[in-house]
Order: sequence, then structure tokens, then C-alpha cells
Amino acid sequence: MVRLVPGSPVRQLYVIGIGAGDPEQVTVQAIRALNAVDVFFVLDKGAAKDDLVALRAEICRRYVTERPYRIVEIADPDRDRSVLTGRQYNAAVQDWHEARVGAIEAAMLAELAPGENPGFLVWGDPALYDSIIRIVDRLRARGALDFDYQVIPGISSVQQLAAAHRIVLNRIGEPIHITTGRRLRSGLPAGQDNVVVMLDSDLACRDLTEAGLEIYWGAYLGSPEQILVHGLLADVIDEIAGRRAAARERIGWIMDTYLIRRPV
Amino acid sequence: MVRLVPGSPVRQLYVIGIGAGDPEQVTVQAIRALNAVDVFFVLDKGAAKDDLVALRAEICRRYVTERPYRIVEIADPDRDRSVLTGRQYNAAVQDWHEARVGAIEAAMLAELAPGENPGFLVWGDPALYDSIIRIVDRLRARGALDFDYQVIPGISSVQQLAAAHRIVLNRIGEPIHITTGRRLRSGLPAGQDNVVVMLDSDLACRDLTEAGLEIYWGAYLGSPEQILVHGLLADVIDEIAGRRAAARERIGWIMDTYLIRRPV
Ligand SMILES: C[S@@+](CC[C@H](N)C(=O)[O-])C[C@H]1O[C@@H](n2cnc3c(N)ncnc32)[C@H](O)[C@@H]1O
Ligand SMILES: C[S@@+](CC[C@H](N)C(=O)[O-])C[C@H]1O[C@@H](n2cnc3c(N)ncnc32)[C@H](O)[C@@H]1O
Repeated sequence: MVRLVPGSPVRQLYVIGIGAGDPEQVTVQAIRALNAVDVFFVLDKGAAKDDLVALRAEICRRYVTERPYRIVEIADPDRDRSVLTGRQYNAAVQDWHEARVGAIEAAMLAELAPGENPGFLVWGDPALYDSIIRIVDRLRARGALDFDYQVIPGISSVQQLAAAHRIVLNRIGEPIHITTGRRLRSGLPAGQDNVVVMLDSDLACRDLTEAGLEIYWGAYLGSPEQILVHGLLADVIDEIAGRRAAARERIGWIMDTYLIRRPV
Repeated sequence: MVRLVPGSPVRQLYVIGIGAGDPEQVTVQAIRALNAVDVFFVLDKGAAKDDLVALRAEICRRYVTERPYRIVEIADPDRDRSVLTGRQYNAAVQDWHEARVGAIEAAMLAELAPGENPGFLVWGDPALYDSIIRIVDRLRARGALDFDYQVIPGISSVQQLAAAHRIVLNRIGEPIHITTGRRLRSGLPAGQDNVVVMLDSDLACRDLTEAGLEIYWGAYLGSPEQILVHGLLADVIDEIAGRRAAARERIGWIMDTYLIRRPV
């Protein structure tokens, strides 16, 4: 239940999951929340930026029917990508988050009229490898803006991966492990038979040599460009690498996710 | 994209995720699919059965506007719960699934007129600890009914847990582990710092004694009865056990999910 508090003296901020590429994978709850927002703040970056901003604009156009709204793009501060391990990595991410918080706070103070509600449209589900919730918590802690906030879940790329392949993520009674490409570089986690990999810029699964591994791979999930490949990892990895490179070349960016399954 | 194939000679079956308790957590894609179904088959069982069937009926009432539909309840075959380990457990589950497939096939053959599309409304997301997709695959393999099928993802209880607590499931760069109460009985998995527990009939986390564990607990997530508790496991476990017992007593059933987090 979205608690809409229109006459409330406390400004409401909405963190809204919008699905991972299909504008139809937006919930009724998200549509209600979209219609409670006055200013959407957008923070995309990188090669996919223009397409991601366009999808957010399309979602607003399609579903926001009840009030006027504005979309404000916030330039994303640069991130130090030179240090990549342990504590240093975390510190670099922390610094970058603090810089983002400063930029967002400045934009909100400049853009929001009294009583106007801000909103963030989050790719997929806000609970999965996304930094907006942490940023919003910091924003509140700084205290320059007084607001309360709500989080609206969205369909994640992992769910669309499973739905498109028509599979259950777990085999009967088994656990599910969700991890990153960076971690997969040190091998498939011991004892994990159903491993979902996200944030993998370079197909780390290429280096897995265990026999019998199965892969369910998906790119541009939910969008008209969606690509799916399924098979034994050893059999299909070259096909995946080839289609991945060709698509990235043609479209200018790629987002992919996959499930690796150990044989029983 | 739901591919609606109304004039198609091949019957379309829809497996539709409907969220875990909030009828507003249904997607636009799911609503389109709901409106392509002629007969909804319902398989609930257990103490929560009446309430779950009622929620499904409410979702149909609210969102199916384009064509008449019927709801058919299928009596769920009994499951042998006496054997609970390894191979025997899997065999018992397999037998039970085969019995369900037989019951569903019989119901479909009896209820579906030529060209009518069947649908299943799945609690939460079909990719997470749900057996419908496997059942549908078996149904196709048996060959008595000719159909193709699509899976529509839904918001899972895990996502509503995170949204309601306004948290991200992973800490920065960390993996996420999703498991069952049955497995948690042998302890918190080694090396897993973010553990989501589902299907836990008796708060297996009560026996975790490691220092510093944090819990984010939720019951009846998404529904008006939603209960949330967060704190150090050692501090709040008695409160959770108490509220859990009281709610189950009052409502007649309970469904709960939680995240256990190890300190950094
Ligand atoms: C920063 S994470 C955000 C995940 C997002 N919150 C979600 O729920 O899907 C970005 C990663 O998600 C995955 N991803 C997001 N959208 C995707 C899509 N449409 N197709 C394939 N993978 C996607 C990729 O692994 C990508 O590296
Ligand atoms: C058979 S599994 C199905 C999970 C479902 N497919 C999903 O995506 O949430 C049932 C388990 O899901 C969790 N669950 C489902 N609905 C819930 C709710 N509304 N509140 C809390 N937990 C829920 C409980 O752990 C329950 O034991």
C-alpha cells in the first residue's frame, strides 16, 4: 500500500522500482506513486545513459496522468575506479556516494518548491545492487531537507531472466546465490549450485572450467532487444561471447545477467 | 512483452506472478495476461487456503475487465511428509508433483473448451520456491493437452520485505543468499553475510547464537496485516516469536520471511 499523504506537512520522497527494461513491468502501486511525484531526479551515467533516461521518460509519459511533473537530470560525480580491492574499494565507493549525495541535495534544494515531492525511478528492484536507498538515508541524515520516504519494489532483471527462460531459480529445496562478476573471478562459490551473476562487465563465467555447468544467459532483458541463450556453459560460451560483443557494438552498451547451475 | 495470440490455433497457458499479498503489486504486464485467460486454475492448500483463494479472486475482480472468466479450484493431492531427508525427500516431492500434474490435467481436460486459455496465478514471483513452472513442463511432456506457455514475473515476498524495511538486500558489492528454514537448521551458511530465509515454519533463526547478527523480519508482507521487526537478533527474537504466535493464533496462518545479516 502506497501511503499517499498529499496534504501532509512532511514532504514525501518516492523510490520507485520500474522494472529492468519493459515499461509493462511496472506495478499498479508504482503507477500510483509516479502520480504522487512532482520532480523526478535522474542520475544515469555511462554508455547506456541516453537509452535509460529515454525509458524513464517513456514510463512517465505513459503512466503519469494525474499531475504535471518535471524531470531533472543530475550530473553524476566521477568515481575513482583505480582501487579495486577490499577496504580501498569500499572507501572509494563511499566517497563517491557522498559526492552523489551532495549533488542530489543541491539539485533538490534548487528545484523543489515548498510541498513538492521528489522521486527516483530505480532500474529493476531498488533492493538489488542499487545505491539510491543508501543515498536517501544519507540525505536525511544531513538534515538540509526535511522529508519522509517510501520504497516501491520493482521487477528485477533476475526475475525477467527466469521468466523469459521459463525456469525457477532454485531446484527443489535448494538455496539461491546472487553475486557479482567481480566475485565470480575467484571461481564459482563452494557449495552453491544456483548462482545468479550480475554486474559482470566481461563474462567472468568464461573462466569456469568445472564439468557439467549449465548457463541461462540474458541481455537487454525485458526490452525489444532481449537476447537469451541456454545450454551447457562449455557448449554455448562462445556463442554468448560472440552475440554479446556484436550487440554491444551495435547498441553501444550491454547489460546482461545469468544463472550458472551445477549438475546434481 | 506478453505475446497475446488470440486467434492462434495453439492454446496459450499463462503463469502469472501476482505479488505476495498487495493487489497493487501486480504489473501492467500481468494485467494484460490476466485479460487473456479464460479459466484460472487454483491449487491452494493448508490453513491459509481460504484467504489466498480470496486474494486471487479479488485480483481477478479488480483487473479482469475485457472478458468473462471462470475460477476452478483443484483439490491438491496429499503429500507424504513423513520422510524429510535427501533423496527420500526429493522422491516424495516428485511423487507429489506427479500427482498434482495428473489432477491438473484432468481438471483442464474437463473444464477447457476448445481454444480457451488456462492461467495460474502464482503467489509472489514464479521463479522463487514455486512448483507451477515444473508442473507445466510436465503437463506439456505428457502431451494430452497441446499448449504453449508464458511466465509473467511478479513482486516476491523478499522484495516487499526489503521495500517495507527500506533496505538493500546486499551491502556494497556483497552477495545475497536465499535459503529455506529447513537448511537454516544446520546453521547460518559459512561465508554468507546476507541470508534471506523463506519457508521457515518455526523460526529456525532462534537457534543462531553467533554474536552481532541483525534480523529484518516481516510477516503478511504487502497485506494490511503486515508486521515488521528489525534489530539485533538476540534483542528482538523474543518479540518476533511472541508477535508471530499471537498473529498466527488470531489469523489462523502465518507467512513470514526474513533477512539475517552478519556484522562486517
Ligand atoms: C547496478 S545493477 C542493478 C540491478 C537492478 N536493481 C535490478 O533489479 O535488476 C546492474 C546490473 O543488473 C543487471 N541488469 C539490469 N538490467 C538488466 C537487463 N535489462 N538485462 C540484463 N541484465 C540487467 C546487469 O547484470 C547489470 O550489470
Ligand atoms: C512456497 S514459497 C513461495 C514464495 C513466493 N513465490 C514469493 O515469490 O514470495 C512460500 C514462502 O514465501 C514467503 N512468503 C510468501 N508470501 C509472503 C508474505 N506475504 N509475507 C511473508 N512471507 C511470505 C514465506 O517464507 C513462505 O514460507
